[in-house]
Amino acid sequence: MEYSNSSNTEQPQTCLEITMEVHRVVPPPHKSTIHKLKTTLKETFFPDDPLRQFKGQPTGKKWILAAQYIFPILQWGPHYSLGLFKSDIVAGLTIASLAIPQGISYAKLANLPPIVGLYSSFVPPLVYAVLGSSRDLAVGPVSIASLILGSMLRQEVSPVSDPVLFLQLAFTTTFFAGLFQASLGFLRLGFIIDFLSKATLIGFMAGAAIIVSLQQLKSLLGITHFTTKMGLVPVLSSVFHNTEEWSWQTILMGFCFLVFLLVARHVSMKRPKLFWVSAGAPLVSVILSTLLVFAFKAQHHGISIIGKLQEGLNPPSWNMLQFRGSHLGLSIKTGLVTGIISLTEGIAVGRTFAALKNYKVDGNKEMMAIGLMNMVGSSTSCYITTGAFSRSAVNHNAGAKSAVSNIVMSITVMVTLLFLMPLFQYTPNVVLGAIIVSAVVGLIDIPAACQIWKIDKFDFIVMLCAFFGVIFISVQDGLAMAVGMSIFKILLQITRPKTVMLGNIPGTDIFRDLHHYKESMKIPGFLILSIEAPINFANSTYLNERILRWIEEYEAEDHKKQSSLQFVVLVMSAVSAIDTSGVSIFKELKKTVEKKGAELVLVNPLGEVMEKLQKSDEAGDFMRPDCLFLTVGEAVATLTATIKSQVSNHVV
Amino acid sequence: MEYSNSSNTEQPQTCLEITMEVHRVVPPPHKSTIHKLKTTLKETFFPDDPLRQFKGQPTGKKWILAAQYIFPILQWGPHYSLGLFKSDIVAGLTIASLAIPQGISYAKLANLPPIVGLYSSFVPPLVYAVLGSSRDLAVGPVSIASLILGSMLRQEVSPVSDPVLFLQLAFTTTFFAGLFQASLGFLRLGFIIDFLSKATLIGFMAGAAIIVSLQQLKSLLGITHFTTKMGLVPVLSSVFHNTEEWSWQTILMGFCFLVFLLVARHVSMKRPKLFWVSAGAPLVSVILSTLLVFAFKAQHHGISIIGKLQEGLNPPSWNMLQFRGSHLGLSIKTGLVTGIISLTEGIAVGRTFAALKNYKVDGNKEMMAIGLMNMVGSSTSCYITTGAFSRSAVNHNAGAKSAVSNIVMSITVMVTLLFLMPLFQYTPNVVLGAIIVSAVVGLIDIPAACQIWKIDKFDFIVMLCAFFGVIFISVQDGLAMAVGMSIFKILLQITRPKTVMLGNIPGTDIFRDLHHYKESMKIPGFLILSIEAPINFANSTYLNERILRWIEEYEAEDHKKQSSLQFVVLVMSAVSAIDTSGVSIFKELKKTVEKKGAELVLVNPLGEVMEKLQKSDEAGDFMRPDCLFLTVGEAVATLTATIKSQVSNHVV
Repeated sequence: MEYSNSSNTEQPQTCLEITMEVHRVVPPPHKSTIHKLKTTLKETFFPDDPLRQFKGQPTGKKWILAAQYIFPILQWGPHYSLGLFKSDIVAGLTIASLAIPQGISYAKLANLPPIVGLYSSFVPPLVYAVLGSSRDLAVGPVSIASLILGSMLRQEVSPVSDPVLFLQLAFTTTFFAGLFQASLGFLRLGFIIDFLSKATLIGFMAGAAIIVSLQQLKSLLGITHFTTKMGLVPVLSSVFHNTEEWSWQTILMGFCFLVFLLVARHVSMKRPKLFWVSAGAPLVSVILSTLLVFAFKAQHHGISIIGKLQEGLNPPSWNMLQFRGSHLGLSIKTGLVTGIISLTEGIAVGRTFAALKNYKVDGNKEMMAIGLMNMVGSSTSCYITTGAFSRSAVNHNAGAKSAVSNIVMSITVMVTLLFLMPLFQYTPNVVLGAIIVSAVVGLIDIPAACQIWKIDKFDFIVMLCAFFGVIFISVQDGLAMAVGMSIFKILLQITRPKTVMLGNIPGTDIFRDLHHYKESMKIPGFLILSIEAPINFANSTYLNERILRWIEEYEAEDHKKQSSLQFVVLVMSAVSAIDTSGVSIFKELKKTVEKKGAELVLVNPLGEVMEKLQKSDEAGDFMRPDCLFLTVGEAVATLTATIKSQVSNHVV
Repeated sequence: MEYSNSSNTEQPQTCLEITMEVHRVVPPPHKSTIHKLKTTLKETFFPDDPLRQFKGQPTGKKWILAAQYIFPILQWGPHYSLGLFKSDIVAGLTIASLAIPQGISYAKLANLPPIVGLYSSFVPPLVYAVLGSSRDLAVGPVSIASLILGSMLRQEVSPVSDPVLFLQLAFTTTFFAGLFQASLGFLRLGFIIDFLSKATLIGFMAGAAIIVSLQQLKSLLGITHFTTKMGLVPVLSSVFHNTEEWSWQTILMGFCFLVFLLVARHVSMKRPKLFWVSAGAPLVSVILSTLLVFAFKAQHHGISIIGKLQEGLNPPSWNMLQFRGSHLGLSIKTGLVTGIISLTEGIAVGRTFAALKNYKVDGNKEMMAIGLMNMVGSSTSCYITTGAFSRSAVNHNAGAKSAVSNIVMSITVMVTLLFLMPLFQYTPNVVLGAIIVSAVVGLIDIPAACQIWKIDKFDFIVMLCAFFGVIFISVQDGLAMAVGMSIFKILLQITRPKTVMLGNIPGTDIFRDLHHYKESMKIPGFLILSIEAPINFANSTYLNERILRWIEEYEAEDHKKQSSLQFVVLVMSAVSAIDTSGVSIFKELKKTVEKKGAELVLVNPLGEVMEKLQKSDEAGDFMRPDCLFLTVGEAVATLTATIKSQVSNHVV
């Protein structure tokens, strides 16, 4: 089809031919309100259709499937073989060598006794092995959740002057975090973690890595009087106000081990096959530094050491959970923040490795597994744990085949707890600091930040906001600011939806954005606008005004050309939803357009939109076949033909 | 074009012909970041392009236009004629007869001295006449803002035991409301009031009308010990616990006048020409009841009267504004809520009548006018005012031609304040109650509620939420709940965008929703999905999973049919925006689809989306001409041809 720009050259016959091709816009098949509600609820809460596998199965099979759904171990357990176990045992021992020093270090980051970090690497992995569906996730304490837990609780309780209360609050927080995670999964509200956008996370992680590293200056420099604040400014001022406390022995030792750890990390990153270099480096550092301290009695020469550690397995801690008292609000709030953050990390890690190995991880079920793991953990002297990215990567590279690697790690940690604790007595704190710094450096992802700058400037601002918010204000405020800005951006996009003027690509019946496709041409007498967003209360006023402005601009241009506006064509293909406020602007628009002597034509309203327009439109104004078309091409062809036949009738 | 379902009947030549018609998808013309930012900011804050009229004018003319822009009176003033003045004087006197009794009543509703209501009908209309751009708006105190102001301030200060402080807070609140309104207009953030959707407003208004009416039971029944709470339950329990205080004289009088007022209202609604019946009824009631009380000395028989009122014009009140102290937060909060609510009413009224008379009201400018009016009002003993719906309707029906009718009303009120105040001494409170009830009954809009139920069930729930929230919890909480739910609905729509499977309408190259257009048919080997929303961090995970489920469902069905999936075609016409998280799912999807042995094809990505995909896609995977098409028809035709030629080559 082709649309001539001059209106009197073609024969009326052609127009009739074109009119024959018009397709009727039909209303969507009727559905009851209950049916619609059901569909909406299903799409909202069960987009992955988890019950699909149960369909058409006999009852016995259904029970088995249900048990396997709740305990994935029943699914892979029966098929488990010795070959797989060999791989898992190597992977398990590798991650244990990483988990032990990291556990001790992260517990110190959370202001908790070092042994709690080991406790947390013993029970939660066992729980996850039974409930979790990821084959690569290595479970244990992670740096960022430890940092947030420590810093948020320290706002109200001092871990130095009141260590027991602090520990109680940490367990209570872990309980609430687990409860919250499990509820999110159970209520299928997992999409809440999607509100942490990629940009937010990259900025947040980088900021948190810097905050964590700054905290390590205490042990790396050997300072004894260190600020309890987290921000960049107070930490740096504390560091430079206490230069007389700096200990050169500590600095030297810290520097050497930090370089060693970073080089090991670099080697493993360059050659993934050498994963064991970076995986083993922390344990090697701990052993080496402990031997050094022991040999040279360095604890008497300014190097601080961990000191005597308790032996034995996790003591029960359910009696330490505090469900009343003045700190309950703090525990709940901290649980919420750490719960969401550690959930985000755990789910992202699970999904990444599942995609690599081409299996599926059910987000909501993972949340229940992680949540239950933390709830069990909170009553067995563990603090918050999740799937850690760096450790899972090592696990994956070491050839883990199933959650058995977690069990192996757990048993190794158990042996350590039972027999090897005295060996850590002389481990210097400076090495733990170096281990933390070398671990969190990986959270700063400069290439991803560059990519974001290239693709979306606003996302980059959100990222900076999260980064500087974390560094200068506080971890939780930086996060909240970034999430707030991301949501504000979405709301702004909704309040100001795009409207685009379309033109015809010559020689076709394709209509596209006039500014984008330069060859496309306006059709005289037609103003063709595409509305590119759902219409609702937040944008209906704007859309109404914006369309009026399009019309006025068209008329102003028209004035010069001496051809008048006859049809305002609204292309609704991109209007996916509409509400009562949205419906009412069409009536207003119709009146306004008619006052200007033109007609309003709708093209391709989608199912739901069409239904609502029809219901609101008792007079049937919008549903008249001469102002409702299936494609722009058909609308333009038919309406041009109508004008011509009117003109020719007039002439006759 | 037609797509055959069996794949071996057509000649290869036809396919080649079809391939000739393919149009290239071109990237949008390059724009700098600054340019894009400028466009976005302009669309966000200046969608109505208010500076358009200044373009290309000489400097002198520009100054005149600017002055006229700020003071619309300069625009219409010079053309004002005696004929217009005659109409305005009739309208002005009519609304004055309504404004005087309503002013006294509404001030009592706000727990303020009755005379403040008259003060507020004197100064603000004069300010609005100079600054406002609506010709029909009748300015003065309104019921809902009065109710909210009274009830929010009463939470902290008692108007009975501390009337001076209460008055000070009322003026301070008015100042903040005005400041807030003017800033919204000045900063061009007027779209914030759009977040009060039609459904929210209808529910809120109806709830507020009931709360207001319930408060009038005090004066209508003559109760002296009345609760200070606003909710349905405490008011009714207070009414029925104090039955011994009910005064039959008051009830009789109230009943008679209420019936009279409601009948008058009904007559005017049936016949708009008889607008003066309902407009004059309140004043008639006041005069009649005052005479009755005076004649029968009814104040000694259980009928409470207003009592002695002060004479004279508005005293200055800028010294009463309190910008410090413990109640500052309350004043600001109340100012915010009443400011937004009264702005919503004023703007809606202005727009409604502007649309009727076919002139334009600039929302942001109106906000500045209303805001300045309230700021001036707060220093001349006025409380919050706006354009009232009922009074503006009377103004319009009485034939008002310009803001001069407001000036006439204002002068009439001035005369009253100066000379007629003693006449109100014997006015019974019960008549004021009846006037309020008859005024707010009009806020309950049952037909609109039915319409909402018919069109959108979720909007109906939002409406009920606002209604019951206002009645059972509190006015401001009900409003907040409804706004929260509306925004939640939008966010939910974004998190769960629609994806629709398209099919070909036989005999055309049109592709439409398979469930909506029953005649449309699937094309073997193709899965054609239309994504109907902007893609961002909040929905990218969902979309990824949902598309995978579509593929799995297709494959499950395929399994029966023995034809395999070859192309996943994503139609992007409705994806108006994308962010970094959104961009990254396409890479993942491409990998997943390729693992399944199929290919991912994109159709018609819009300008911005295309640009971002291109930037993120260094390998050029998405921009290859064989997986990027302008229309679905062309994509299907070309790809079918490719398969066939491959098959025939294979055979050869």
